[in-house]
Amino acid sequence: MKVDDIYKYIDHTLLKPTSTWDEIREVCKQAVDYKTASACIPPYYVKQAKVEFPSLNICTVIGFPLGYTYSKTKADEADEALSYGASEIDMVANISEIKAHNWESVLADIVAVREATVGHILKVIIETTYLDDEEKIKMCEIVTQSGADYIKTSTGFAPGGATFEDIELFAKHIGPNVKMKAAGGVKTKDDIEKFISLGVSRIGTSGAIKILAGEETTGY
Amino acid sequence: MKVDDIYKYIDHTLLKPTSTWDEIREVCKQAVDYKTASACIPPYYVKQAKVEFPSLNICTVIGFPLGYTYSKTKADEADEALSYGASEIDMVANISEIKAHNWESVLADIVAVREATVGHILKVIIETTYLDDEEKIKMCEIVTQSGADYIKTSTGFAPGGATFEDIELFAKHIGPNVKMKAAGGVKTKDDIEKFISLGVSRIGTSGAIKILAGEETTGY
Repeated sequence: MKVDDIYKYIDHTLLKPTSTWDEIREVCKQAVDYKTASACIPPYYVKQAKVEFPSLNICTVIGFPLGYTYSKTKADEADEALSYGASEIDMVANISEIKAHNWESVLADIVAVREATVGHILKVIIETTYLDDEEKIKMCEIVTQSGADYIKTSTGFAPGGATFEDIELFAKHIGPNVKMKAAGGVKTKDDIEKFISLGVSRIGTSGAIKILAGEETTGY
Repeated sequence: MKVDDIYKYIDHTLLKPTSTWDEIREVCKQAVDYKTASACIPPYYVKQAKVEFPSLNICTVIGFPLGYTYSKTKADEADEALSYGASEIDMVANISEIKAHNWESVLADIVAVREATVGHILKVIIETTYLDDEEKIKMCEIVTQSGADYIKTSTGFAPGGATFEDIELFAKHIGPNVKMKAAGGVKTKDDIEKFISLGVSRIGTSGAIKILAGEETTGY
């Protein structure tokens, strides 16, 4: 693929807890310059990013990265981020309740954020590295049922990230209105192209610009 | 020290993103049985824990573990946790703004949660592993100024945890109304006793019961 076409799939990401505005600003500027799908940045910086880069498509993260905050906290945080100019919300599902197979609670948590984000893109991170295949398949069904726009593999803060196998599994089990985002540990141009060939619509990585210049990175 | 005396210093902790209620319940039960200072558990489980263990002193975590949510999100989440029966709040400071030396923003963020937690214990996690000594000293001053009850070293989710050197530094620079909590990577009874001898009032660990039975653990 042409590099310019690949950028359209990239959520250009910086989510380190130590990132200052100067570092976030640089990521936002690169996202504009390289025409990535979005810049994915901490909630705290959304307002400032929107002021400085009004045309930027801003993605932020909610209930991140552990997913065990209240549904109300997630919904209110999403609402606040949207009010500051975010247009895409990547929420972490309640992983504990996934592991407990309390599917009604898992769905209700996503629906609470879906209701707070109507008209905007909502991605649901299920943190695949903690789940078995049965749980991943169930989450494909629940994300579909919730009305969210995307199922996303990983936060990048867990011991494992996106795999080709998980994307192939998602592709079989999501509904027609659900897209896929691969994130966490995407390290090479070959990886990116393979994920795209498997049907992902977005890739979350902090390394896109280096990767697409042919350098390897340490990942997310 | 006698083991029973040591338990009084322990925030008995389980904060894994995958923990089910069965695992959290066991930690709560142990906290009651061993008379630890508290059980430190995810916000999501506070309500259930209070119902099942009404006498338990429940500690939970806010803006955890990255610290870059909105101050309003942190304050609302703390308020909700208290309404469900938590009595201690461990918040993560805005680490990004610490690194940027935007001290007014750092203080305002803590004060927002302080105002939401009046009458309850508030601990401020500064994630020492990311900070230099000058920043740690400044945070001793800011936590003192904020009216929070504790300065706490670490979340347990960063690359480094509590060190004796950081506690010695805190002891020199906090005000008389601020206590210290060591958390992250506390692995042996010797470690615990040394932290106590240096003046900490609380130690956060998931391994207290194994540690005090003489077994080594893998830490937080």
